[in-house]
Amino acid sequence: MAKKQKNSKALSEKEGVDQPTRLNPLASERLKKNKTPSTEVIIEGLLSGNKTHLSRALTRIESTAEKHQKQGRQIIEACLPHANKSIRIGVTGVPGVGKSTFIESFGKLLTSKKNKVAVLTVDPSSSLSKGSILGDKTRMEELVKDPNAFIRPSASGDSLGGVAQKTREAIILCEAAGYNNIIIETVGVGQSETAVHSMTDFFLLLKLAGAGDELQGIKRGIMEMADAIVINKADGENIKAAKLAKTEFNRALHLYPPKESGWKPKTLMCSAIKNKGIDKVWQLIEDYLEATKKNDYFQHKRTEQNKFWLLQTIENTLKRDFYNNPKVKGELEKQLALIEANKTSPFEAAANLLSLKG
Amino acid sequence: MAKKQKNSKALSEKEGVDQPTRLNPLASERLKKNKTPSTEVIIEGLLSGNKTHLSRALTRIESTAEKHQKQGRQIIEACLPHANKSIRIGVTGVPGVGKSTFIESFGKLLTSKKNKVAVLTVDPSSSLSKGSILGDKTRMEELVKDPNAFIRPSASGDSLGGVAQKTREAIILCEAAGYNNIIIETVGVGQSETAVHSMTDFFLLLKLAGAGDELQGIKRGIMEMADAIVINKADGENIKAAKLAKTEFNRALHLYPPKESGWKPKTLMCSAIKNKGIDKVWQLIEDYLEATKKNDYFQHKRTEQNKFWLLQTIENTLKRDFYNNPKVKGELEKQLALIEANKTSPFEAAANLLSLKG
Repeated sequence: MAKKQKNSKALSEKEGVDQPTRLNPLASERLKKNKTPSTEVIIEGLLSGNKTHLSRALTRIESTAEKHQKQGRQIIEACLPHANKSIRIGVTGVPGVGKSTFIESFGKLLTSKKNKVAVLTVDPSSSLSKGSILGDKTRMEELVKDPNAFIRPSASGDSLGGVAQKTREAIILCEAAGYNNIIIETVGVGQSETAVHSMTDFFLLLKLAGAGDELQGIKRGIMEMADAIVINKADGENIKAAKLAKTEFNRALHLYPPKESGWKPKTLMCSAIKNKGIDKVWQLIEDYLEATKKNDYFQHKRTEQNKFWLLQTIENTLKRDFYNNPKVKGELEKQLALIEANKTSPFEAAANLLSLKG
Repeated sequence: MAKKQKNSKALSEKEGVDQPTRLNPLASERLKKNKTPSTEVIIEGLLSGNKTHLSRALTRIESTAEKHQKQGRQIIEACLPHANKSIRIGVTGVPGVGKSTFIESFGKLLTSKKNKVAVLTVDPSSSLSKGSILGDKTRMEELVKDPNAFIRPSASGDSLGGVAQKTREAIILCEAAGYNNIIIETVGVGQSETAVHSMTDFFLLLKLAGAGDELQGIKRGIMEMADAIVINKADGENIKAAKLAKTEFNRALHLYPPKESGWKPKTLMCSAIKNKGIDKVWQLIEDYLEATKKNDYFQHKRTEQNKFWLLQTIENTLKRDFYNNPKVKGELEKQLALIEANKTSPFEAAANLLSLKG
């Protein structure tokens, strides 16, 4: 195993830019010869903590090309023995609540404590408008320059299931690359929170004071998942309203049934932009970890998540194998044309295609 | 084919309550002999417009038992030639906006115009809290008693995909039973709107005046999908605020790029509880239908939806077939136990299970 890469800051994060690196000599040699490094080289580089190789590996698992997907699976397999050694924190909140600013401030605190921080996002954006509004590196100016932080925008995909699967795999890769704090950011729209909740140890809901939607029914499912509610922008003239909101949220949280974890969700205030109260958030997470490791809930939750991800992995693989079948590829075009001509129903067309499976 | 059933009101809607009905004599005879009517009898009854048989058919497609699922598929196949002859209207809005009251008022208007109305719901509720908050018949007291209306609560399921698939099938069955207006209700949480949008011709967003969340980024995806925004509870002291909201929404709607349909989304006000403005909503939908049938968008959209549902049907079937494989059933238990004991990863366990597919 190559020893930990120290100067990863010096490397370009961009895929395809090959500079000589401090990998072990053999890998370095291979890198010079091939413009596209081999899967083996990527794995070696990733495990040594090299950001360029980590980025490359993530590009492989996000690719829709069969060749890259196969490489992606090899990389995941190689990373599995090195994964699981991190704390996974989910962060959610509606647009405007200050998620990026919070993550920047929180991430800087963590790296200052000698942690390595990876920021991933789950953003199955509007199928109409396309494009991710989260994980934009330009919104985390300082963190992106930090050699001990790694920020990756959301994988794209045409379904939440696909995006979530890729994020789940990205966690494995980041952990294998030595990141011991994984932050997963998502936007407050219901289903994506459930996905992020299913892959994190601690779930943090960011809120604003006086935003009017605090106790709406629609937010209940998300409030129910939260291990902490953090009221952001608690500064200047906002402090009074933030304190009021804190009391209200606390009251609301008491109405929920006790959590399986035994943990009582807490409410905190912070000002991410002024870097205030961020250390208290980290302290709270440390308290949570201590409590849930003591009562074994931490491992229990990960086990349940693993069961869930077993099923998700199976389902995504079934789809991929089916659509990659050459017979299916040809017939799919034909059946779509028949639907186009209004000469078949989706149910009949599906039956025809499924008969090719055997 | 049995002639249209006239006295469906007299029949109990509850599954399993078998009363002699005005089915054709043969079917009636069969019904007496068997406590559980055959698939053939259910199909005959459904196509004659019998609500009891329609309910039975829906129970079949919602069942997780393989036997019932098979019957469900037979029923769908028999219904397909009789489907597609309806207008499908999606209705969404946050809890408290008055969806049930609106649908009750709107549904009554439609039945008064000699239409048959089916109300279905898509509600992939919080995986934590379980249970559906939509489609509760007690919330539509009058409509539920109307012989020309049929109300069915959301199918349950552990994924939005599963729930949506069942609702999509329910549309086919309701259409085959003679319902020419299908209303699909959903709650305002993002992903479920996308699902409902993908199975309806017209998408209606209910809003309240002054609720504070009008122009929040989070609602953009949903506003973008809407063909009409209807401001409910525009009565008494609310009228002024409703008018203001109408102007604001109109302004916001103008900021979106033109729709593929050529239709410019409109904003209306109504008071469902006072039965005011509901006829204007129907008028608007008729205008939409006229415009989009003229420019062929109506059929184009249904074709695109059919393509989407082809893929959805395939994916749901792949999953069902895999998990129903006896070898997989046995091994799945074992792999889950290994995960429980932390002796394998979800990815390795999935690979083991998928190797049994052959």
